[in-house]
Amino acid sequence: MAGTGPVDLRPVFYPKRVAVFGVTNTPDRVGYNVLESILHGGFTGKVYPIHPRHEQVLGCKVYKSLEDVPEPVDLAVICLNQYATVKAVESCGRAGVKGVICNAGGYRETGDVGHDLEKCLIAAAEKYRLPMIGPNTLGMINNDGNFYSTFYPLKIPAGKVSIISQSGGIGLTTIHMAIDEGIGINKFIGVGNCSNLGFADCLDYLENDDSTAVIGVFIEGAADAGRFVRTAGRVARKKPVVVYKAGRLAEADYYTQTHTGSSAGSFQLYRDILHQHGVFTVNSASELVAACKALALQPLPGGNRVGILTHTAGPSVVMIDHLAPAGCVIPPLHEETVSRVKQIIGSDNPPVVLKNPLDAAGLGFSRPTYGGLAEAMLADDNVDLLLAVYCLHKTWELPAIELINAHKKYKKPLIVNFVGNWQGCRADQDFMQNAGVPLYTAPEKTAVAAAALVHYGMRRKGGNDRDD
Amino acid sequence: MAGTGPVDLRPVFYPKRVAVFGVTNTPDRVGYNVLESILHGGFTGKVYPIHPRHEQVLGCKVYKSLEDVPEPVDLAVICLNQYATVKAVESCGRAGVKGVICNAGGYRETGDVGHDLEKCLIAAAEKYRLPMIGPNTLGMINNDGNFYSTFYPLKIPAGKVSIISQSGGIGLTTIHMAIDEGIGINKFIGVGNCSNLGFADCLDYLENDDSTAVIGVFIEGAADAGRFVRTAGRVARKKPVVVYKAGRLAEADYYTQTHTGSSAGSFQLYRDILHQHGVFTVNSASELVAACKALALQPLPGGNRVGILTHTAGPSVVMIDHLAPAGCVIPPLHEETVSRVKQIIGSDNPPVVLKNPLDAAGLGFSRPTYGGLAEAMLADDNVDLLLAVYCLHKTWELPAIELINAHKKYKKPLIVNFVGNWQGCRADQDFMQNAGVPLYTAPEKTAVAAAALVHYGMRRKGGNDRDD
Repeated sequence: MAGTGPVDLRPVFYPKRVAVFGVTNTPDRVGYNVLESILHGGFTGKVYPIHPRHEQVLGCKVYKSLEDVPEPVDLAVICLNQYATVKAVESCGRAGVKGVICNAGGYRETGDVGHDLEKCLIAAAEKYRLPMIGPNTLGMINNDGNFYSTFYPLKIPAGKVSIISQSGGIGLTTIHMAIDEGIGINKFIGVGNCSNLGFADCLDYLENDDSTAVIGVFIEGAADAGRFVRTAGRVARKKPVVVYKAGRLAEADYYTQTHTGSSAGSFQLYRDILHQHGVFTVNSASELVAACKALALQPLPGGNRVGILTHTAGPSVVMIDHLAPAGCVIPPLHEETVSRVKQIIGSDNPPVVLKNPLDAAGLGFSRPTYGGLAEAMLADDNVDLLLAVYCLHKTWELPAIELINAHKKYKKPLIVNFVGNWQGCRADQDFMQNAGVPLYTAPEKTAVAAAALVHYGMRRKGGNDRDD
Repeated sequence: MAGTGPVDLRPVFYPKRVAVFGVTNTPDRVGYNVLESILHGGFTGKVYPIHPRHEQVLGCKVYKSLEDVPEPVDLAVICLNQYATVKAVESCGRAGVKGVICNAGGYRETGDVGHDLEKCLIAAAEKYRLPMIGPNTLGMINNDGNFYSTFYPLKIPAGKVSIISQSGGIGLTTIHMAIDEGIGINKFIGVGNCSNLGFADCLDYLENDDSTAVIGVFIEGAADAGRFVRTAGRVARKKPVVVYKAGRLAEADYYTQTHTGSSAGSFQLYRDILHQHGVFTVNSASELVAACKALALQPLPGGNRVGILTHTAGPSVVMIDHLAPAGCVIPPLHEETVSRVKQIIGSDNPPVVLKNPLDAAGLGFSRPTYGGLAEAMLADDNVDLLLAVYCLHKTWELPAIELINAHKKYKKPLIVNFVGNWQGCRADQDFMQNAGVPLYTAPEKTAVAAAALVHYGMRRKGGNDRDD
């Protein structure tokens, strides 16, 4: 954001009084849905809907203008067209509003005329040093304050992961994937055209936001890529940042310009520089959510040595495909561990190969055996992090208690890969995750989760990322 | 399979009388679960459980030996240890059984002793020209005949996709992902160590299996890679084959050797050669299922020109990232289409950019508008296949009927990317897929689905894959 000195963004994210410009009774309009979103989300502050002609919308009294609102508001959500939005921002600035969210598209992403209009919008915001999210944005959610202001009425579990997304559609994708993954979202910021508040401003804010433990970013391109990367790198030293950069091709680049008016830039360059700055990057929305989930739930490992316990080998092959290029190693088991495993299995010459990954085959179907093996591997000084593979079964149960107890005892990160479908695994997912153990049903997600933990674990040990 | 001339595999996949060796009353044993699986799956043929000491298991009379079974059986599922399995295969051969499934591990994947034992097993099967699935396998499912013989009792929707998997764990992963994706499985073959029936034999069988329309393969490595690739290429000219090859790293290669006794081989070489033979390859289990789903539900496109209709831009950027490297192009819209779009929107100067991807923004929230735009794009001669992006919303509905009608009218492939979570989308997924339109909730899956259709669409037109 331009101007001198930082602007306090707390009133934007934790408003007490909110004005909504452009409310209407038509359910396919943004103005209806933003108000519905605020009400449905359980906001406990005051809401002042504004429209010159409506009397009531969704049971709320409507005010003719901001001037008619009886008390000062902290935040205005502006659901007007691109022209009226500029005027509304002006009026908010004059009235001392502390922040605005502008949903409308029709600015720089549409060409020269829109570009000029966006300049006017930016000027209006900057004149009053008014922090502005958008324009061309889905909106913002602060689940820590029950404040939902997107035009997609939602009520999602609260948690420690905050998401910054340039795209509303991918932002919604990550929100819904988080629901499927059983993790909570703390804040969601759709930065849209980043005309005033950009990625770096949002990262700056979230860096000091105590309710945010992990930050996920979806970016197509940033006008100030340098500041974004430097900020992400700085924040990542304090709390994990995971970046999914899209727009890797010339075709997509053309398209992102007509989406949020940004140039996607060189995909590989972005990734390389982010990596140099110590930021973990991923290749899809599902990887973004998977990585954030593990980072939100688990402690960081002391190193990069991954143990794998399973009763079916294939998932290990797939996971190693992803783990090795991410800098993880699959260490041999310690001699003592091998003895302990033999003891648990009750044989000096067991029918399984005693190595890492440890495939217990049929012996792993027994909960006490599986739990004992998990404990033996977590106790191994060669193992910094354990991946436990188990399959949904009609007759057997996931050794959930055994795994949770082993995890508690050794305080090393533990991730479960539960081979199963959504309905069959959901109860176990909730059970494990309530105990802080992330559970995935796709081996590639389990692997990226482990890679993310290892990435930040190695950095905490004193990795080789550059300072600036 | 060795021997002279092909062996009839139909009695293996469609048995009328099945013997199960090694049944037991202990629920964490394979012998219990295979019987449970057969009963739970709804098999209508006869089952003959065998164990020398048990009288009854799961309510079934148990026979002391195969000789005690009163009539000849077609298939024997052998749930014994690796040594007893060899003996049982011998007895099956003598008794004229037409096929065996051997679950036990403990063969070549465990080292030299196991390797020698596996030679004995193979010799026993070959002596009687007895087709053998495994050993070291999860088992087999033929959903077309309600025959479930894995030791994971399941009942899954029937459909046109058959899966061949070297790994039980990844096999189960694909089965559960298919459940999540709302598609049915026709046959599942866990080939395990491929000691007798290998990938090529199974592909040969499925090529002429009328109930299988699409074949998905998970392979770590094959002893006869050349025959596998040639067979996959030949079968792929008749029905689509999708291959997920894992074990791409030296680390994984070491591990696959101790898994199914195969060498993973050069990952890139495998992929390149498969591609030369016209086989579509993917990078994960979820992509395997996503690609098979589209190929099972949709007609093949006449070319590689992909239209994208959306009301939120980000997913298009992500999809183009995946589509362009797969040889898809995003063509400009025809002049007539642009006029038609203007007419539907009701403005000569609409607030959206009239290009492909067509982002209708707020106008797309209206079902008739969205449906009209979908129809206009499907009518466009420049468009071979349409991707329709829509978001789950509390107030609006997916324009399901409109999309289905447009699809029926123009007979071009249509794929829906519905931004939403599992619970919120499931009813719409079933509704669309019952009408033959695949629905995904992750843009990377939508893109791989489109890429798979384009791959086989281009081949049908006369692609440049080599003959052999």
